[in-house]
Amino acid sequence: MNGQTPVQVEDGELALLTDLYQLTMLQAYWKEEMHERATFSLYFRKLPPTRRFMLACGQQHAAALASRVRFSAYSLKQLSETGRFDEAFLHWLAGFRFSGDIWALPEGTPVFQNEPFLEVDAPIAEAQLLESLIMNLVQLETVLASKAVRIVMAARGRPVVDFGLRRMHGVDAAVRGVRAYRTAGLAGTSNVLGGLRHGLPLSGTMAHSYVLAHDDERDSFRSFARHYPGTTLLVDTHDTLEGVRKIIELMEEEPGLGISAIRLDSGDLGILAHRARALLDEAGLDTIGIIASSGLDEHQIEALIADDTPIDAFGVGTQMGVSADAPVIDLSYKLVEYAGIPRVKHSTGKINLPGRKQLFRRRDADGTYLGDIIARREESIDGAVPLLVPLVCEGRVDQEHMAGAERARERVAQALTQLPADLRRLDPGETDYPVELSPALQRLQSELSLAPLKRKRPRER
Amino acid sequence: MNGQTPVQVEDGELALLTDLYQLTMLQAYWKEEMHERATFSLYFRKLPPTRRFMLACGQQHAAALASRVRFSAYSLKQLSETGRFDEAFLHWLAGFRFSGDIWALPEGTPVFQNEPFLEVDAPIAEAQLLESLIMNLVQLETVLASKAVRIVMAARGRPVVDFGLRRMHGVDAAVRGVRAYRTAGLAGTSNVLGGLRHGLPLSGTMAHSYVLAHDDERDSFRSFARHYPGTTLLVDTHDTLEGVRKIIELMEEEPGLGISAIRLDSGDLGILAHRARALLDEAGLDTIGIIASSGLDEHQIEALIADDTPIDAFGVGTQMGVSADAPVIDLSYKLVEYAGIPRVKHSTGKINLPGRKQLFRRRDADGTYLGDIIARREESIDGAVPLLVPLVCEGRVDQEHMAGAERARERVAQALTQLPADLRRLDPGETDYPVELSPALQRLQSELSLAPLKRKRPRER
Repeated sequence: MNGQTPVQVEDGELALLTDLYQLTMLQAYWKEEMHERATFSLYFRKLPPTRRFMLACGQQHAAALASRVRFSAYSLKQLSETGRFDEAFLHWLAGFRFSGDIWALPEGTPVFQNEPFLEVDAPIAEAQLLESLIMNLVQLETVLASKAVRIVMAARGRPVVDFGLRRMHGVDAAVRGVRAYRTAGLAGTSNVLGGLRHGLPLSGTMAHSYVLAHDDERDSFRSFARHYPGTTLLVDTHDTLEGVRKIIELMEEEPGLGISAIRLDSGDLGILAHRARALLDEAGLDTIGIIASSGLDEHQIEALIADDTPIDAFGVGTQMGVSADAPVIDLSYKLVEYAGIPRVKHSTGKINLPGRKQLFRRRDADGTYLGDIIARREESIDGAVPLLVPLVCEGRVDQEHMAGAERARERVAQALTQLPADLRRLDPGETDYPVELSPALQRLQSELSLAPLKRKRPRER
Repeated sequence: MNGQTPVQVEDGELALLTDLYQLTMLQAYWKEEMHERATFSLYFRKLPPTRRFMLACGQQHAAALASRVRFSAYSLKQLSETGRFDEAFLHWLAGFRFSGDIWALPEGTPVFQNEPFLEVDAPIAEAQLLESLIMNLVQLETVLASKAVRIVMAARGRPVVDFGLRRMHGVDAAVRGVRAYRTAGLAGTSNVLGGLRHGLPLSGTMAHSYVLAHDDERDSFRSFARHYPGTTLLVDTHDTLEGVRKIIELMEEEPGLGISAIRLDSGDLGILAHRARALLDEAGLDTIGIIASSGLDEHQIEALIADDTPIDAFGVGTQMGVSADAPVIDLSYKLVEYAGIPRVKHSTGKINLPGRKQLFRRRDADGTYLGDIIARREESIDGAVPLLVPLVCEGRVDQEHMAGAERARERVAQALTQLPADLRRLDPGETDYPVELSPALQRLQSELSLAPLKRKRPRER
């Protein structure tokens, strides 16, 4: 430990949140006086097998940070000490400002394979430097929101609360993940700092340790309920149904105790919820709800609800906190244009789409998605809506398009009513949602693949 | 966006990196005047199916932050505004300091199911509040180091470099992950801030975008090699073997160009590495090495090496960056003692070990691990070494035991020579590494399970 605050990244260090090769390439561009504008496009080539769509999230955070990237004097000193950089180049970096444009899908937009969900147009050094940071930021929120929305769908209107702080990958993921969860439609979070920062209601019950620290479980229930009228009590520390019976006894002794719910956190949740519900109902305590947690994912929740299990709300941590079945998407951030000339990598047989682009979505009269068209940026397509909007213009964040988490949440809620039914299924499987290329983009692509850019130069050069 | 620096957590906010229920339990303990010492024990119940051991990491970071947790005036104001807390309680929180002890395994120690790898002894409120933060911090480094060490083992002495910044979950994971990678034995990282903070050498080559931004691939190679003598060139932007041939031509034209390696980043790495090696060797360029990247994990690396593929170093990102096959371990942080009385949760049929504990490891004359014994804290066991050491004593970090990343790295390197061969295999599978309970701990456990702590109180209380 070096005394530094280890969970802190100062603004002046943001520029170092990059891969070394970005900086060595920057120095090479600088030496070669390559300062023309470039466009980089962010997309993924295929959906994870367990996802039928992704929710594009994190673009606002990426745009906001991009506009603030600076090299502090201390950062430049550290770079100098690596021995890899010329002092004149470091002096040039000292004046680094992002002066370009960032176009992106609005947060919470469903997105599919090969679709540009963010494009950076800027002098090449600026767009190159930001690659690593933008990818890191966008991937995190996109992966977490895309998992969380599946759990929201599985719960069919029952509230879902985030319990994931302890399982998520570090402090930034845990705190900023709450923003992705708000976008995805969660009802609350146990994460205090995350909830306070990102405006998701705080939620919490009690832990087994509280029960164990008391000599008697019933005493612990009574004390907690007296402290917190309307609380939820955790009943599975010793024996779940015994725990429920103790609550029923307590309510008989002290009917004024406000207990709004019990929480089940282990065992066979289906069986225990049915039995607990029956015990509570027999005792006339039908106003006491049941909250379930315990390693739940969307498939378990879907199965519990299909069985009419009387669970009123879900607490979800581990599986959602790291998007365990798809913790990563294979995002690409590719140079697609430089100095006004569309460019593309050819080698792999994969689809690489040249040039600045726009994404269009066609819908029917009810708003249901019919299909997407990837087009060149300046195109317009009859009957389809362009989705990419400018988040940053000439280095300045466009406040109109930085609409905030609540607008993104509304967008997701609406999207869930407009996605074709096939895409809302939770089981793995291919979908036939059409993602096409506009004729103009197809023409550009085939021109480049027939005659890849290779202006042969004489060898002696 | 609210103008806050989104990747920053101030010291005064560390206390809010907790779950809401910790704070409501703290208020309940405070109201009930429950201020006795408690012990919480951190362990996992089973290894992920794809792991044969975990490397315990992150304890130093957790201990350092624990000793610094404070509630700032602003944090207390935010808590007050939730309406859940009494002002007198918040006033008490303003004086919060961690005054307890934290015992932990030294970082880089291999750890198995049910083994206590960190125990907190403190007044119950202090130990309870820190649960969420400690679990988050320890899990991150443990998960990442445990994945990374498998990749190091697979590479059999060839250098492995971290390329994961863009794929990791947020900024904290990416930066602090580098510390876990240093512990695990990686040779370098592309992550500039992570490498600078945590003392792992920076490493980097070039990206496809650099090649594409030039009109001609060979020009781009020449320029980059002139800028950076001894560099690595990425050869797969258009056609991998064509790329290799261009380098051979370049070296014929300009023999002084210092090119130390080529990088392959797509396609069939086995075939391409053999062919590239043959081309280079035929041209007398046997000093030019081959670096491979492209979604590699330990199994692919193991297979490449088993086929004698001529690859000299590996760059690894996606799979290692999120520990994709085991992104989470099911850590528990359980109350095991309060007010001098060992306690344990009974309900689930799982193993829960009461009381303050110590972990002993037996070795043969060569140091090879023979098996572990979980014991009570005060025990000593003939022929076995106690592993848990005090990292924090009465709230102060013990500098002797905060040995730093380099010592942890040496510990891992040594452990890899001392783990039984069965545990060093990379395929999934059960191991029969013995983890036993000492007779004294077994006695305590059976006393508690025969007579669980239930001092019946009169109902009217």
